[in-house]
Amino acid sequence: MKKAGILGTGTVGKTIGKKLIQLGYEVKMGSRTANNENAVEWAKLNGEKASVGTFEDATKFGDVIFNCTKGEITLRVFELAGPDNFKEKTVIDISNPLDFSQGMPPFLTPEYANTNSLGEEIQKLIPDANVVKTLNIVNCEVMVNAAKSGGDPTMFVSGNSVDAKAETISILKQFGWDDIIDLGDITTARGTEMMLPIWLRIYMATGNGYIGFKIIR
Amino acid sequence: MKKAGILGTGTVGKTIGKKLIQLGYEVKMGSRTANNENAVEWAKLNGEKASVGTFEDATKFGDVIFNCTKGEITLRVFELAGPDNFKEKTVIDISNPLDFSQGMPPFLTPEYANTNSLGEEIQKLIPDANVVKTLNIVNCEVMVNAAKSGGDPTMFVSGNSVDAKAETISILKQFGWDDIIDLGDITTARGTEMMLPIWLRIYMATGNGYIGFKIIR
Repeated sequence: MKKAGILGTGTVGKTIGKKLIQLGYEVKMGSRTANNENAVEWAKLNGEKASVGTFEDATKFGDVIFNCTKGEITLRVFELAGPDNFKEKTVIDISNPLDFSQGMPPFLTPEYANTNSLGEEIQKLIPDANVVKTLNIVNCEVMVNAAKSGGDPTMFVSGNSVDAKAETISILKQFGWDDIIDLGDITTARGTEMMLPIWLRIYMATGNGYIGFKIIR
Repeated sequence: MKKAGILGTGTVGKTIGKKLIQLGYEVKMGSRTANNENAVEWAKLNGEKASVGTFEDATKFGDVIFNCTKGEITLRVFELAGPDNFKEKTVIDISNPLDFSQGMPPFLTPEYANTNSLGEEIQKLIPDANVVKTLNIVNCEVMVNAAKSGGDPTMFVSGNSVDAKAETISILKQFGWDDIIDLGDITTARGTEMMLPIWLRIYMATGNGYIGFKIIR
């Protein structure tokens, strides 16, 4: 049976974790403590294939790891999980380096934007793992069900490993994504992370968060 | 007859200017000198409704002004045109604050990105004018013919004046844009200017520059 580790116990982690269980994965949700309330409640709702543990436990458990943490704590979480534990694993990074300190809309944390990205920083921290940036440009219900946007939107993947991207694309297809563009190496995550500002402003202008980006071409 | 001033003599300015003439406008293309070679050649090709002049001449001439300059010189161009000459005019800003100094792909000029935008800086320089940011997210052939992307993409407008946005939307419709989202005030230009990095990476990955962004919703 395929095993996935989820880093983070927020709505994104819970939604991705539930979907992976529906797809037949065993899933361990990791957090700072081994008995995080959110994680325990999520596991109870998701049957025997769901379990909980620390970030380190979830990382050791999974063949594929989903980073569903908030951007502001992401790098600290990878430190806590133990960089060596990610070796040769596919790490699907959904995080965004958003800074909400000045209210809505957040801006991107300047040191991880424009000439850098959070995806790249994660890859630097775990050089023996294969980071793939994807899914960060839609809300979590659309992540696991692309049609929830109301159409057939485009999804992007960025990463240095062709194999890890192929594995990610296979999961994305099971999430309902049919139109996927491989942008290239992990530095192309700069492009997708910089889509958050337009996502936020479309959401603020229309009140609709169930949107997707279709690249017409 | 409606009169438009074009700032900039590059491909964007020429393409927008030609389209406006086809739509019945008189168009004056402005540059640093009154007899810029590019502008003179463009005017020859576009008949008696096309004329050339300085940035100041083009600004005084137009009821609506299109900023088609490169982002790196945009603010200097507005200074040369004379900020007072824009008073109460609609200024359609197509520029992007791209920095090519480190090669391809360019990044955004940090002081005009993320927590600021070139659109906002222009509005600050000409506070009595009505700046509308739009069209900066596609190549110039798609700008004047949305269907050239191969579909019905979405266009955004950002600006403080409802009337100036309505005038801009009326022009966009004549350029073939049917799906237009009003994002709000000029600060929302941060969102659309930050779409350039993904545009560039899609172009680099696919080799296709005739693309558009459709917001599925």
